[in-house]
Amino acid sequence: MIYPPSLIRLIEALRCLPGVGPKSAQRMAFHLLEKDRNAAGLLADALQKAVVDVGRCQRCRMFAEAELCPICANASRDRGTLCVVESPADVAAIEQSGSYRGTYFVLMGHLSPLDGIGPDELGFAQLETLLAEGSVAEAILATSTTVEGDATAHVIAEIAARHNVKSSRIAHGVPIGGELEYVDGGTLAHALAGRRTLT
Amino acid sequence: MIYPPSLIRLIEALRCLPGVGPKSAQRMAFHLLEKDRNAAGLLADALQKAVVDVGRCQRCRMFAEAELCPICANASRDRGTLCVVESPADVAAIEQSGSYRGTYFVLMGHLSPLDGIGPDELGFAQLETLLAEGSVAEAILATSTTVEGDATAHVIAEIAARHNVKSSRIAHGVPIGGELEYVDGGTLAHALAGRRTLT
Ligand SMILES: [Zn+2]
Ligand SMILES: [Zn+2]
Repeated sequence: MIYPPSLIRLIEALRCLPGVGPKSAQRMAFHLLEKDRNAAGLLADALQKAVVDVGRCQRCRMFAEAELCPICANASRDRGTLCVVESPADVAAIEQSGSYRGTYFVLMGHLSPLDGIGPDELGFAQLETLLAEGSVAEAILATSTTVEGDATAHVIAEIAARHNVKSSRIAHGVPIGGELEYVDGGTLAHALAGRRTLT
Repeated sequence: MIYPPSLIRLIEALRCLPGVGPKSAQRMAFHLLEKDRNAAGLLADALQKAVVDVGRCQRCRMFAEAELCPICANASRDRGTLCVVESPADVAAIEQSGSYRGTYFVLMGHLSPLDGIGPDELGFAQLETLLAEGSVAEAILATSTTVEGDATAHVIAEIAARHNVKSSRIAHGVPIGGELEYVDGGTLAHALAGRRTLT
């Protein structure tokens, strides 16, 4: 290979990004070195700082810089209602809809045995501890309306039932097969209001 | 925004990458923080090292860690033949075809006035100095076979003519509208052998 070693290493490192193949990694590396060295430095700093600073909220698993995320740390949020979502982006989408005053639990995915994503990866033990505490009255299962999202919701509904926590599933308004984070605020508000009890 | 500041900064920094919009930047940041913190650290290091180490070859503008790239520093390469290409990836593709023993000049783009890419951005002054030196007998213009690539080749052919350097354009075999780096080695070898004189 005719590229200098540091360029080859940069191209290889960029390939760790999801959706980036060898050609895009090369295009990105050329762009940074050719037109935007300042951006390359800023990206390096942002990566290092995020790896050090960003952890998970101890209660809800949301990305957070403190032990608790701002929502869990906010005394005015309703801890009796727990909205279980797949991704931090879903929390952001629901917060932007302004229609929810409860708290969250972020799974960081859905059950997907073929990809090695099971109860451990999704923090089911931590979720069960939270549900067993007694403060949560209702778990709103807002996983994706896909086969995997539905399966994940049903397993969580069973866990909730064991601890006498009511489960509901957001339903109306969220398009089938759709990802929650792409749904507009009005639709999300409707879906939350129209939730139905599962157990 | 409900994300921690370091996560927001990381998402913004990832958007400097070509072809990365807000949703992909978010997906990349989540992936790195959630599944691949080690890769995030390696990418940060690779970026910093590349920005410090990787410069341009003083003769041909190829990315290089020394003053001259390995090709320009190689005494067995024919300095009488100069292949002018748009991108370092084109150099890599031609080198892989094994059909060329001359040297290169890397424009890092093609003339594109609407994008603010003119003679200065493409190093035309440096190219002219090289052609004026007297050691180059022929400039093989291997810019893309697109309208912009052709226009760029013609302007360079005029510069070469002023210094009594013969210009040729690779032609046969390279598909019209195609980008050089995606062409296989055999086709490239054919295109180089079948070049025709422009001036
Ligand atoms: Zn939290
Ligand atoms: Zn060189």
